[in-house]
Amino acid sequence: MPTINADRLLADLHALRRIGEYETGVHRPTYSDVDMQARHWVAGRLADAGLTTDIDGIGNVFGRGAGAGPKLLLGSHLETQNHAGWLDGAMGVIFGLEVARALGGGIDVAGWADEEGHYGSFLGTRSFCGLVTEAEIDRCRNVGDGTPLRTALAHAGLADKPRVVIDPADYRGYLEAHIEQGATLEDAGHRIGVVTAIVGAHRYRIVFEGQQNHAGTTRMAVRRDAGVALIRLAAAIDARFPAIAGPRTVWTTGRITLDPGAPSIVPGKAEMLFQYRDTDPAMLAALEHELEALVAEANLGPCRVTIADRGRSVPRQMDAGFQTALEQAAEKHVPGLHTRLPSGAGHDAQIMSERVPSGMLFVPSIHGISHHWTENTSDADLVLGCQVFADAAAAILAG
Amino acid sequence: MPTINADRLLADLHALRRIGEYETGVHRPTYSDVDMQARHWVAGRLADAGLTTDIDGIGNVFGRGAGAGPKLLLGSHLETQNHAGWLDGAMGVIFGLEVARALGGGIDVAGWADEEGHYGSFLGTRSFCGLVTEAEIDRCRNVGDGTPLRTALAHAGLADKPRVVIDPADYRGYLEAHIEQGATLEDAGHRIGVVTAIVGAHRYRIVFEGQQNHAGTTRMAVRRDAGVALIRLAAAIDARFPAIAGPRTVWTTGRITLDPGAPSIVPGKAEMLFQYRDTDPAMLAALEHELEALVAEANLGPCRVTIADRGRSVPRQMDAGFQTALEQAAEKHVPGLHTRLPSGAGHDAQIMSERVPSGMLFVPSIHGISHHWTENTSDADLVLGCQVFADAAAAILAG
Repeated sequence: MPTINADRLLADLHALRRIGEYETGVHRPTYSDVDMQARHWVAGRLADAGLTTDIDGIGNVFGRGAGAGPKLLLGSHLETQNHAGWLDGAMGVIFGLEVARALGGGIDVAGWADEEGHYGSFLGTRSFCGLVTEAEIDRCRNVGDGTPLRTALAHAGLADKPRVVIDPADYRGYLEAHIEQGATLEDAGHRIGVVTAIVGAHRYRIVFEGQQNHAGTTRMAVRRDAGVALIRLAAAIDARFPAIAGPRTVWTTGRITLDPGAPSIVPGKAEMLFQYRDTDPAMLAALEHELEALVAEANLGPCRVTIADRGRSVPRQMDAGFQTALEQAAEKHVPGLHTRLPSGAGHDAQIMSERVPSGMLFVPSIHGISHHWTENTSDADLVLGCQVFADAAAAILAG
Repeated sequence: MPTINADRLLADLHALRRIGEYETGVHRPTYSDVDMQARHWVAGRLADAGLTTDIDGIGNVFGRGAGAGPKLLLGSHLETQNHAGWLDGAMGVIFGLEVARALGGGIDVAGWADEEGHYGSFLGTRSFCGLVTEAEIDRCRNVGDGTPLRTALAHAGLADKPRVVIDPADYRGYLEAHIEQGATLEDAGHRIGVVTAIVGAHRYRIVFEGQQNHAGTTRMAVRRDAGVALIRLAAAIDARFPAIAGPRTVWTTGRITLDPGAPSIVPGKAEMLFQYRDTDPAMLAALEHELEALVAEANLGPCRVTIADRGRSVPRQMDAGFQTALEQAAEKHVPGLHTRLPSGAGHDAQIMSERVPSGMLFVPSIHGISHHWTENTSDADLVLGCQVFADAAAAILAG
């Protein structure tokens, strides 16, 4: 079995951390100068390792290893959320680089673009899977400042480059290592997680329309308070979702807006952003049915309630054989200190699984923190995770 | 009994409307150039009517009529809410001007400053009642852009003027005419309202502190979702306040903020601005007791809940004799088409009632709309309201 080089692994992780560093984390939005600097640096490290490198027209970094037959593709994304952590994405790319070095062949490595959605939705892997049209690229804009994606690609020097699309026959599959971004592993004392499935999510904007009025002079009996209508629906979700939900179902109201939002004005309009996630399509359908029933009940009140779909993803199962390979590798190094678990967050592996067998390995996140610059994982868990990842990759290639 | 001049009244109301006009309403924030233009215009009209005029150091406009013995003071405020209506405040000042002209003596008129709270809380009447210190003026800032009150007063040419303070012996009392700003009169077909009392209000900021987390990876069982804590408290208020409340009690959540307010992040902090109003101090105390009990219950959850007082006003009873005078004048002109009612909004009369007997007359608001540029009242109701106001003033002076 291959042996990874722990010092080299940690040195590369810390070198990448310095590109766009912010506090103890990183600020490296997709196609920013530091993001492109990171992509070129990774391409250089892949070339140093003997891989054939390329950056394609959507910003995906590829390193192609030696070997003829179907290879294993390892990767994750290189950009970060704003002012976020140093391991989210970057770790999976450097694990891929280190495993390519340790195995000496049979491995391709990818550093995907824009998993974090600064411009689109999984642009890098969706482009690689042939799911992004030129028309979509024409439409995409930066979610923060509205910069067109075309402008950003031109600024990044990518405008004239072709986009690479997968030939599934080239690969045995795709394997991605990532931090857990939750505390399930840490709380249970587990050091490795084997991902069973990646959740699907339904996202909604729910809008309540009533009548704006003076909060002193408008009697309760005649009010059409959009904020009260929102609170009643949100409270009904809080009361009724637990009875339907499975053990890993999650649902979240992330934003509430009352309009005009003044202390002495009865809100005439209110809005909530609501989502739920599960790995079981039947559960997502049951939750949708319940939400629609609650909205219909809410519409019996004095305010009008409308629900708009903000997008949905389907749950993706990870390959059973890859799960076994990852679990056996973990059992060899840390017997009993690993577990199978679903991923509550979206990952590039959910897109890749539409084309080739895919699998994911999780390492623990300290205190479960992610999408914040304090995000971290112990050096011991990073080194262990990479060694387990290497062993699993070798087993899959040998299988 | 005096007879008002309807054409002159309406012409003056429309002339004042043009100073800072916005759509069919007015944008005239306190101490803005248009606000000061309005104050000087009103002073000019008061002088034309034979009154001795003055604008004092807080911007209050005074017109002092002929006559020795205790006089009746009539007034309201001259500034508006932002992009708001043409009658809120302005109507009461012009009614005062017209009644001073119709009665020929015994009347002083005031155009108060900043009832709408661009810089403070009832600055004009509180200054006139001796309730504003120089230290408070030092502290006050514009609630929108933070401009210090001192800077605004200097820009308005008021910095070196003394502030006039009432000698209660000079007055029989204070009478204010105002639009209802609700639809109680209109809904019942009443054309005049006689105000019995002005509500007191308790205002709160309620803050919920939990733990910000990833909305996909954080299981429901371990979440400390500040938004859910807020929704539960707001729903409990919605469920339990009606059992305690009186027929005119009102309560409002005007603003809700979830932090960071992103669709895929479990809110770590949440905040609501909450208030309730009633004319009965015992009712306000009962509501406060209930709110504190609900907050204590909320604190049994996984989030910390704190409640901060944002200010409170006490209910003020209007003078019984003034109510009778207003009611008798209304009965003479529109028999049976008037009613006694409390004011759910705050008014300068609540401050004045701390120093002298005070009363208020309401005219109907079309569709109950106020604090919006579509605010309006029919010409017939304006003319009737002013005539009833004049008759009541004459009766009080004769009494």
